[in-house]
Amino acid sequence: MELNSIIDATLLKPELTTDEVLALCESAKEFNVAAVCVPGRFLKLVTQELRDTKIAPCTVVGFPLGNMSPEAKLEEAKIAIKDGAKELDMVLQIGALKARELQLVEDEILKIVNLGVLVKVIIETALLTEEEIVLAVNCIEKSKAHFVKTSTGFSSRGASVKDIELIRSSIKNDTKIKASGGIRTRELAVDLIKAGADRIGTSSPGSILG
Amino acid sequence: MELNSIIDATLLKPELTTDEVLALCESAKEFNVAAVCVPGRFLKLVTQELRDTKIAPCTVVGFPLGNMSPEAKLEEAKIAIKDGAKELDMVLQIGALKARELQLVEDEILKIVNLGVLVKVIIETALLTEEEIVLAVNCIEKSKAHFVKTSTGFSSRGASVKDIELIRSSIKNDTKIKASGGIRTRELAVDLIKAGADRIGTSSPGSILG
Repeated sequence: MELNSIIDATLLKPELTTDEVLALCESAKEFNVAAVCVPGRFLKLVTQELRDTKIAPCTVVGFPLGNMSPEAKLEEAKIAIKDGAKELDMVLQIGALKARELQLVEDEILKIVNLGVLVKVIIETALLTEEEIVLAVNCIEKSKAHFVKTSTGFSSRGASVKDIELIRSSIKNDTKIKASGGIRTRELAVDLIKAGADRIGTSSPGSILG
Repeated sequence: MELNSIIDATLLKPELTTDEVLALCESAKEFNVAAVCVPGRFLKLVTQELRDTKIAPCTVVGFPLGNMSPEAKLEEAKIAIKDGAKELDMVLQIGALKARELQLVEDEILKIVNLGVLVKVIIETALLTEEEIVLAVNCIEKSKAHFVKTSTGFSSRGASVKDIELIRSSIKNDTKIKASGGIRTRELAVDLIKAGADRIGTSSPGSILG
């Protein structure tokens, strides 16, 4: 497996501009990565920039806090698909998970999965106990999302090898794992892959692949 | 003026639970504050809890990054109003402001203002230069939103007296100012009000009013 084929080139900061998104798309095409993940406002532009490639336009839903209304998240996902998204990285209802309102967590994911594109569910490991990480993985598997994703990059820490090992050992089906948050070196990316990650999100594709 | 009447009791953290929202509503009723601001998922509950009071149910839109698609922000605002919101605290397109794409910034706000509820526009002063703060205030006044709000509470810093003074001196009409982000003492709240703030957002209404 070539490392480039499992990289999601990602920029999500609030002050992001069009010029930075265009540069990200150029870098993504140079390295032929898996996906380009940007905020919803830039999705049409990214879809246009990637039109002659196999790189997937990707955006985030309910990001980064995860506690907007499930109805609003579903609308955001529908708009993203209309704007060209082939992959959606959604944040689950972290507070509902913590309060063990698991039906709410699962129903919300299931409705978005049913829209038909590839869905990665961000669990924000920084905020969860080990028990809650296992519960989150179970909810994601029940709602048939494609990936468990570790982190938003906006909490106190990003992905760790320990997170990936715990998620990998909790998965019962063929659900995949995306490691994300603070991954800026090839060394860390390789360690996370060895621990079980199938996809790596990074704002520094050049540092990892260059 | 009584301090309680200009406080927005606010909890927006990703791991927020129903029990914490109920406790916030109790505290809000005890002190008879202006509004209770919670993530969209809890808005129906807050609307129900505040039904026999004059306290406004409030939520956030495009929060906290501001760069979701304008269409998705508008849908999120409509759903919030259907769920009972009388006030909306929306984050503006920070990257568009920085790239001087001011028409995009204004159009997005205007569409949400046209929904008919009170709108506060968060400019995230931590990420803006002084020139950009003035530009943001101009955009907000052109789009007829009711408040300029300083901060999300999720960036590198919250409201400062200097921010409020600059915003106050930039306002040409009767637009109001909400100071927010890290306001946990009565002393700071009073300083911000003296500098020109008309509303104070805080997750610690008891510490300020108790």
